[in-house]
Amino acid sequence: MDFPGLMMETPLTLRLAFDRARTLFGNKEIVTKTPDGTARTNYEALCARVERLASALHDMGVRPGDRVGTFGWNSARHLELYLAVPSMGAVLHTLNIRLHPEQVAWIANHAEDSVIFIDDSLLPAFEKVAPHVTTAKRFVIMGDGPLPETTITADSYEELVEAGHPTFAWPDLDESQACAMCYTSGTTGDPKGVVYSHRSMFLHALMSGMVDTNGVCENDRVLPVVPMFHANAWGLPWAATLTGASQIFPAQFMTPVDIARLIASERVTFAAAVPTIWIGMLQCLDQERLDLSSLERIIAGGSAVPLSLIQAYEQRGMKIVQGWGMTETGPLASLSRLTGHIEERSSDEQMRFRARQGLPVPGIELRIVGDDGVPAPWDGEAMGEVQVRGNWVARTYYNDPRSPQSWTEDGWLRTGDVGIVDPTGYVQLVDRTKDLVKSGGEWISSVDLEGALMGHPKVLEAAVIAIPHEQWSERPLACVVCKPGQRATKDELIEFLAPSFPKWWLPDDVLFLEEIPKTSVGKFDKKVLRAKFAG
Amino acid sequence: MDFPGLMMETPLTLRLAFDRARTLFGNKEIVTKTPDGTARTNYEALCARVERLASALHDMGVRPGDRVGTFGWNSARHLELYLAVPSMGAVLHTLNIRLHPEQVAWIANHAEDSVIFIDDSLLPAFEKVAPHVTTAKRFVIMGDGPLPETTITADSYEELVEAGHPTFAWPDLDESQACAMCYTSGTTGDPKGVVYSHRSMFLHALMSGMVDTNGVCENDRVLPVVPMFHANAWGLPWAATLTGASQIFPAQFMTPVDIARLIASERVTFAAAVPTIWIGMLQCLDQERLDLSSLERIIAGGSAVPLSLIQAYEQRGMKIVQGWGMTETGPLASLSRLTGHIEERSSDEQMRFRARQGLPVPGIELRIVGDDGVPAPWDGEAMGEVQVRGNWVARTYYNDPRSPQSWTEDGWLRTGDVGIVDPTGYVQLVDRTKDLVKSGGEWISSVDLEGALMGHPKVLEAAVIAIPHEQWSERPLACVVCKPGQRATKDELIEFLAPSFPKWWLPDDVLFLEEIPKTSVGKFDKKVLRAKFAG
Repeated sequence: MDFPGLMMETPLTLRLAFDRARTLFGNKEIVTKTPDGTARTNYEALCARVERLASALHDMGVRPGDRVGTFGWNSARHLELYLAVPSMGAVLHTLNIRLHPEQVAWIANHAEDSVIFIDDSLLPAFEKVAPHVTTAKRFVIMGDGPLPETTITADSYEELVEAGHPTFAWPDLDESQACAMCYTSGTTGDPKGVVYSHRSMFLHALMSGMVDTNGVCENDRVLPVVPMFHANAWGLPWAATLTGASQIFPAQFMTPVDIARLIASERVTFAAAVPTIWIGMLQCLDQERLDLSSLERIIAGGSAVPLSLIQAYEQRGMKIVQGWGMTETGPLASLSRLTGHIEERSSDEQMRFRARQGLPVPGIELRIVGDDGVPAPWDGEAMGEVQVRGNWVARTYYNDPRSPQSWTEDGWLRTGDVGIVDPTGYVQLVDRTKDLVKSGGEWISSVDLEGALMGHPKVLEAAVIAIPHEQWSERPLACVVCKPGQRATKDELIEFLAPSFPKWWLPDDVLFLEEIPKTSVGKFDKKVLRAKFAG
Repeated sequence: MDFPGLMMETPLTLRLAFDRARTLFGNKEIVTKTPDGTARTNYEALCARVERLASALHDMGVRPGDRVGTFGWNSARHLELYLAVPSMGAVLHTLNIRLHPEQVAWIANHAEDSVIFIDDSLLPAFEKVAPHVTTAKRFVIMGDGPLPETTITADSYEELVEAGHPTFAWPDLDESQACAMCYTSGTTGDPKGVVYSHRSMFLHALMSGMVDTNGVCENDRVLPVVPMFHANAWGLPWAATLTGASQIFPAQFMTPVDIARLIASERVTFAAAVPTIWIGMLQCLDQERLDLSSLERIIAGGSAVPLSLIQAYEQRGMKIVQGWGMTETGPLASLSRLTGHIEERSSDEQMRFRARQGLPVPGIELRIVGDDGVPAPWDGEAMGEVQVRGNWVARTYYNDPRSPQSWTEDGWLRTGDVGIVDPTGYVQLVDRTKDLVKSGGEWISSVDLEGALMGHPKVLEAAVIAIPHEQWSERPLACVVCKPGQRATKDELIEFLAPSFPKWWLPDDVLFLEEIPKTSVGKFDKKVLRAKFAG
């Protein structure tokens, strides 16, 4: 280096977040929903338990670099693991409780989890996983009462914490070492493991506190509805800890009405979930009178947020901000807050911008790349694969030979999303590469059609898939779920779409279903739809 | 490392800020005050000039690691240098225009500046510096018109930019390399050079965008009144560039009334300056009717902000937030925003918290250490030297043999400030170590007495210094400037102080002065007062 800076290079680690909450925000609340009310603690008490937990894990033989699995809902105990495991240099591995038991075991074995923590309410599910687990030697059960009867040999979390020493000699950490890992839900092939570094998650937490992003702050009461096994609940547990925000956890009480009541009773200011949750909650808001006035903002992401959903919340005085990202991107890569210039435009146009995926957040660089491998212009027309780069973007998968194909030669992540960027820099996702409908050599965006269909007053959910077609190669098929008590017809819906799309975009057929199958993280599962209807 | 993270480690450099403003916020305004109005540009035009400037600097022979000096007011051209010099791997060295000419030259030579950029309005001052400069081979003059007549051999900035190539091959940067340097104003001994790394300043910019800190955001119109040669205008030019905020520069028009008018005409949302500026502006607000309703928040720092000043602005609907830091700390180390729990207390108590230096910002760790070298408890009573650690804290001075004494053996910066921390974590500075008055074996805080004196309706400014005393070792002497047309008496002021302090704290005498001498960055210069009155 020609002329080095002379500043400290304190490692960027999640322990900075833990220490900050402990020293500055001891009396801020951590609330977990229980069957008959809430369990309440604060950072002071929780951080003391975290220290005991770390010491107990150490006594159990867990060492820096070891993977510690979790199989749980969002709860204060899960937060304790979020803080203890990375802070002691071990690796938090959150298992997706909604996957098939054999797939959960495959993932735990692939990551070589050394111990797995399980919510007692999930024991029936985990008992089907346990026989297939080969690497974990210990299981620990989290819950309030005595250990439930179970077929697996397990310890009690509360006894473990109790037995831990009140002080633990926290090791020095390198910012590049792993703090956590998470497997993609894998709609195709085996799941792929993303290994987050301390540096990546600390920076993501810092960024999440910025005014122009999630804006997590001390005054917030944060409700991550998004599961702690889904891309680290979008990093919110660490962002909230760093800034001293109160945290509210729904545990297994995840129905829309549960969530709505929790927002009202806990005066939640900030909540985050996939659109399906917000679609569901809208229904119950119309049935039940709840005061949700504390809710300053909602982050929705994980799949495209229909314009009609944003509008419906706006009409009820609630602000949905769309975020975009993936397990491989920390996850927050872009966010659709409006810039000052766009706020000067008409309210219709503002809405259209809010229905996009927004501007890349500070620290993330984004480009769209055409089939020719050349970056496409930001002209609002050229389409290309969205590629990103930055400190909270994965550079490879864990022990996976398919890794190279997901990155470009110059080191950008290929997201598999196809998008357009307009001259203002707002990204609009057109589709997942594999969900685009190729009709007569032209692309049709399933996402656009779905968003429009879900704007119809009788439609609750809509998914559009490609079906093979002799002449046109592929044609779009719409799968629609009507709102309770409503019945739409094919003609009615096609007529509704007609003014907004070229004629050849309109679906050839509309199937009315009881429900759209969903993936383990709440996205429409088009793989299942295709398998069922493509013939 | 036992288990490395698998995330990208994109270097944290200021070029990320430059690229972000250029790609996303091209049409956001950059405004500089001129003698007869304003000069207006935007990030698109400015960034294009930055690229030309970098190429011209390269053609001139400037290479990565070379120091590039500036001797200028806050302006768009100065911002161009803030972006071009670090982005090309060279080191921006901002010279303090208010120092004695020989001291400026000493600093430029110590840093080995290779070229120096000078505002044309500062040529008369710089002509006294130039003969003493030994390392810089080139001088460049910034201004609008033709090159003014001058005794020094210099190039024109505008011609230089014009001659630059529109595209420049930006080099790869290492995040640990230097981006900028700044010398402390040095109230004792020679100035000391702080060398900022890219990593430190990028992280500082990210942090400055957080809700709980400066909250710099896209919607802001930021006015750094604090000079660009004073700890990088507190990092605001880079924070604003990263977030796409508009930037408003006062140039040489720095009187309180100039600043107030600029805030009103440019609808500034966020302004930052030392307390003396805000004290001065208060005066003119009472004389002139100006609409300052756009101003959402004011950051004051650099020396303690008197409670009465915060109250006076509050009464006029303006919010002063006190920040604390120093050239060696990036500079932002703590900030006195109120937590939710403190906002529940009485408004008097809230005010007392706002008059403190606040909570350490995310990324900074803080402790107070007693004379015994042991960290003191946060009990609101124990005093100790404030010590800090973090990524935007210097780890040594540039080529300075006195460096080691400013750091502890375990690597914390000794700030030379004495403080108290209460159980909520709020830091309150009692004094600079060297400004404490030692009376009869006990400490008296000059800062506390000054703050109280400045709360008296007739007092404009007050500085308290120690004078030698045979019996008590030292005793406090108050130096006071009355508001125009006001006359206070010694008895009146002592009587005013009496209810708030122990009897032995009360100053032995009060001197009434025309003005308090100030340092080059606007702090009370107690060294001068002591030299004059200590006898």
